[in-house]
Amino acid sequence: MAKTTASSPAPYFNFDAAQAALKVTGPSFSLAQISPDDTPGLIGDVKKAKAQAQAEIERSDPALAELQERMFAQARVENPDAPAVLLVLQGMDTSGKGGVVRHVLGAVDPQGLQLASFKAPTEEERQHDFLWRIDKKLPQRGHIGVFDRSHYEDVLIQRVRQFAPAAEIERRYGAIVDFEQRVQDSGTKLIKVMLHISKEEQGERLQERLERPDKHWKYNPGDIDERELWDEYQQAYEIAIQRTATEQAPWWVVPANRKWYARLVIKHLIRQTLDGLNLEWPKADFDPAVELQRLKQS
Amino acid sequence: MAKTTASSPAPYFNFDAAQAALKVTGPSFSLAQISPDDTPGLIGDVKKAKAQAQAEIERSDPALAELQERMFAQARVENPDAPAVLLVLQGMDTSGKGGVVRHVLGAVDPQGLQLASFKAPTEEERQHDFLWRIDKKLPQRGHIGVFDRSHYEDVLIQRVRQFAPAAEIERRYGAIVDFEQRVQDSGTKLIKVMLHISKEEQGERLQERLERPDKHWKYNPGDIDERELWDEYQQAYEIAIQRTATEQAPWWVVPANRKWYARLVIKHLIRQTLDGLNLEWPKADFDPAVELQRLKQS
Repeated sequence: MAKTTASSPAPYFNFDAAQAALKVTGPSFSLAQISPDDTPGLIGDVKKAKAQAQAEIERSDPALAELQERMFAQARVENPDAPAVLLVLQGMDTSGKGGVVRHVLGAVDPQGLQLASFKAPTEEERQHDFLWRIDKKLPQRGHIGVFDRSHYEDVLIQRVRQFAPAAEIERRYGAIVDFEQRVQDSGTKLIKVMLHISKEEQGERLQERLERPDKHWKYNPGDIDERELWDEYQQAYEIAIQRTATEQAPWWVVPANRKWYARLVIKHLIRQTLDGLNLEWPKADFDPAVELQRLKQS
Repeated sequence: MAKTTASSPAPYFNFDAAQAALKVTGPSFSLAQISPDDTPGLIGDVKKAKAQAQAEIERSDPALAELQERMFAQARVENPDAPAVLLVLQGMDTSGKGGVVRHVLGAVDPQGLQLASFKAPTEEERQHDFLWRIDKKLPQRGHIGVFDRSHYEDVLIQRVRQFAPAAEIERRYGAIVDFEQRVQDSGTKLIKVMLHISKEEQGERLQERLERPDKHWKYNPGDIDERELWDEYQQAYEIAIQRTATEQAPWWVVPANRKWYARLVIKHLIRQTLDGLNLEWPKADFDPAVELQRLKQS
């Protein structure tokens, strides 16, 4: 933690304070605790902080780039212990999942990224357990994986829309906890984020999509059908988080009415996670002196 | 073309001139035509141009970002004619393929990118035609695909190392031409690039990898074995290009001793290709006025 904040040129943001406010580790959680307009950790004037945050998000970040490259390098030498990171992004329509990928993950080497987005399951996927398609998209060692929606849809839309029986939904919470435990035990560090927006904010964002012809492609009439179930979705999120937030696999409920704030928090989360892996450059499995000699003769 | 150069803030580089020098469309090609140190299209002092090129490569590029988003949007509305782009990167070890991905493709939204790198084929892949694994990695509509090595390895290392009989290598040239024709007919625009470096330049880059512990992971003793076959590889490249460069699927032989020059050319190639697709925002398949009304009531 000290390392992360020390390397950051941002006296306008205290990541530890954000963390204390946004990290959820157990069942005694209520979504009402966190307002979508909040900006925990910001220091001083919000407008000034916004300009600084936007600059920090867009600026190239050599420290983050090096951490990512070290992790990537670990896997390239076929180290069976090389780690991976998986960022799980959940949130209502328009909550800014795509923007996080574009602006935050856009700053790292695309060769070290593996993105997956989960839409309605295909016919083949429906013939398997809900985690079957998820498992196949887990990031390889050395990579940062990002899930744009995830296995949580199977306890969110599937619960709200009653696509699965209640007993099956119940089973899934436990299955998710076990699955995530296995994922982490195998060396993949999980970061689970809910981008938390208000219904009003969603209304404005949908309106913009409808008013701008260059945004029409992002709109789907079904978005309103989902919006009409807003309260049911909020409840489903709350229950999902209560049931699956643990010390080992916490949730981060990130206020996202201000897009830049959510991006800032997630950038810090990724940097902190990579920092915590204590990544070294892999040791050579050859003798550099011998190879330099061979090179000279070639 | 006019559109591309007009939108570029770069009076130090004439892309049309670069194109005239580097585009290969037929069998009368010799690798000796193009020196790895050349910088066709650059105007004025090379050192000044270098600084401008590096700034242009790193700078965010709203025009390119919008072109990419338009292509992505085309595919999101399930348009069966939505195009894709595939950049095929070939070159000797250390020629800068990874750097092109990091610096040039790093500037576009990772959600619109699909990367694939081809190493030695697996046991399963060897049980299929050489194009089987390639076909599976073609980009989806709306995406920019990048192949770090490709089906050309099957007429390069496989020819030099005689991993396949001569008659099979012969067959493959024609198979590649047919395959690429089909890929393009199906709506995927191909950009085939050879990053052309000299043996001396490779020597310096390998030396750096051996002298810097943070670069050791990029080095493999087998790199020297390949280097010792330098002339055979150059000949295999020349033949492969002669046999597969067509008007419809030209090769770009890009001097790459200066990394920034190669990246500049490829950035322009991608922008020109997207420009040439005449991408519009997709038309809404709903009535925005009706939807705005629904939104108000929701």
